[in-house]
Amino acid sequence: MKDRPIGIFDSGVGGLTVYRALHKRLPNERFIYLGDTARVPYGTKSMATVERYAIENSQFLASRGIKMLVVACNTASALALPKIREKIGLDVVGVIGPGGRKAVQMTREQQHSKIGVIATEATVASNAYYEAIRRASDTAEVMQAACPLFVPLAEENWVNEPETYSIAAKYLAGLNEFRPDVLVLGCTHYPILRSVIQQTVGENVKLVDSGEATADEVAALLDTKGLAHPEAADQERSLCDDLDHFYVTDAADRFARVAERFLGTKPSKLEAVEVYGSDELS
Amino acid sequence: MKDRPIGIFDSGVGGLTVYRALHKRLPNERFIYLGDTARVPYGTKSMATVERYAIENSQFLASRGIKMLVVACNTASALALPKIREKIGLDVVGVIGPGGRKAVQMTREQQHSKIGVIATEATVASNAYYEAIRRASDTAEVMQAACPLFVPLAEENWVNEPETYSIAAKYLAGLNEFRPDVLVLGCTHYPILRSVIQQTVGENVKLVDSGEATADEVAALLDTKGLAHPEAADQERSLCDDLDHFYVTDAADRFARVAERFLGTKPSKLEAVEVYGSDELS
Repeated sequence: MKDRPIGIFDSGVGGLTVYRALHKRLPNERFIYLGDTARVPYGTKSMATVERYAIENSQFLASRGIKMLVVACNTASALALPKIREKIGLDVVGVIGPGGRKAVQMTREQQHSKIGVIATEATVASNAYYEAIRRASDTAEVMQAACPLFVPLAEENWVNEPETYSIAAKYLAGLNEFRPDVLVLGCTHYPILRSVIQQTVGENVKLVDSGEATADEVAALLDTKGLAHPEAADQERSLCDDLDHFYVTDAADRFARVAERFLGTKPSKLEAVEVYGSDELS
Repeated sequence: MKDRPIGIFDSGVGGLTVYRALHKRLPNERFIYLGDTARVPYGTKSMATVERYAIENSQFLASRGIKMLVVACNTASALALPKIREKIGLDVVGVIGPGGRKAVQMTREQQHSKIGVIATEATVASNAYYEAIRRASDTAEVMQAACPLFVPLAEENWVNEPETYSIAAKYLAGLNEFRPDVLVLGCTHYPILRSVIQQTVGENVKLVDSGEATADEVAALLDTKGLAHPEAADQERSLCDDLDHFYVTDAADRFARVAERFLGTKPSKLEAVEVYGSDELS
């Protein structure tokens, strides 16, 4: 069991920032990543549809013999964790709980902590981060803002363009008035724009990368459960090397291109697969 | 047969600009619109997947008793028209042929015509507009440019923001050097940004709205085939009234919201449906 890989799924490419965080934090582990590129984005879809897609993705990864499942997709984490846990007999970690808890931890010293959250419209509307923060703290003040253009800007790799700074200033104006102590990057794409966001909110605001927070919790859970990989760290281990396997449900070439923008390297093992019933394809 | 509605499908909300053009050009006709919002966007998906989705959408509309089918989605028009025609026994009109032909017609007087095309990355990569223009003219010079951020900017309704002008200036810089006589708006979302685009390329460049060109060809085809609706124009007819029926495959509330941004009104008849095999849903 210990030497099995950790499964990660996302609606598309965004979860690669979660993969990167897990890979950095857990260099002994192997990963299987599934990007549901045939059905991306999830954020504009209904709860029933997101649940169905999430379960199909989880079952696909479970059938590949994983020891733990990370739901890198914020929308699926917000809407589908209970159903996924019901359907597969594995530990399942989403990104929203860890992101919310980390934000509360980072402001624990303060009497009146203020936590900002930026995410897609769907994640904001779901209130999932608000609830995760509330479960960890009765007193933290929370303000959320949706930043819909950040995802396409990240995928275009417009990380230094003046338009990106200008759009960020617009989206984050309300949060800057709120003056948060920490700001949760509540969408897997946003770490790509980390430097724009940090400059826009100022150096005093600490950013919480939900992917990094998730990697910390996965590390703790592996220890607690005695599931950490037994072999020592391989000095040679690099992102996207052939110990990690990547699957997409469509358009592998585009995935590889965006992966290179996000991670600086293309997956060496990348395959297109179908994760839904073969009946649909008849 | 004559009093049957015309079917329109798109991958999502963008095709509403084609619906608007058809509605304006053909006030006697009734329309059934299907937005495949559960599986949008098509532009990043493979040909086989786009064909499958397009056929499912077409069969759904055919089962509703339409007299003609308009494929409002540029990606599906580029990749799936032959398969759709093979599967359903109706006249099928895509948006790319009409858009390309209209561009050539508008420059016919000139000895050396120059045609610009802007579209999504997938449509540009498919070369479908280039080929449609080439079929209508041996001599026209063609230059294409992808404008990936235009779709999210249109959906956000950022039609007057300085960032949108700045992004347009960036995307259209190469085309402005090329100095086209006409510019084809090769994505259904782009008419929403028409005024930004017109200002960026200058008043001398004539814009071709593929949706309007398609409406002209549909009108001609209805006449040729004797399929025009027999009743005279109703003075009261307005966009999205209850003579037109709208279907989406998911998230009807978001569709209604964006429809209001695009058309200034919400569909009075809007239903969520499933267009794929029920097996997938088990």
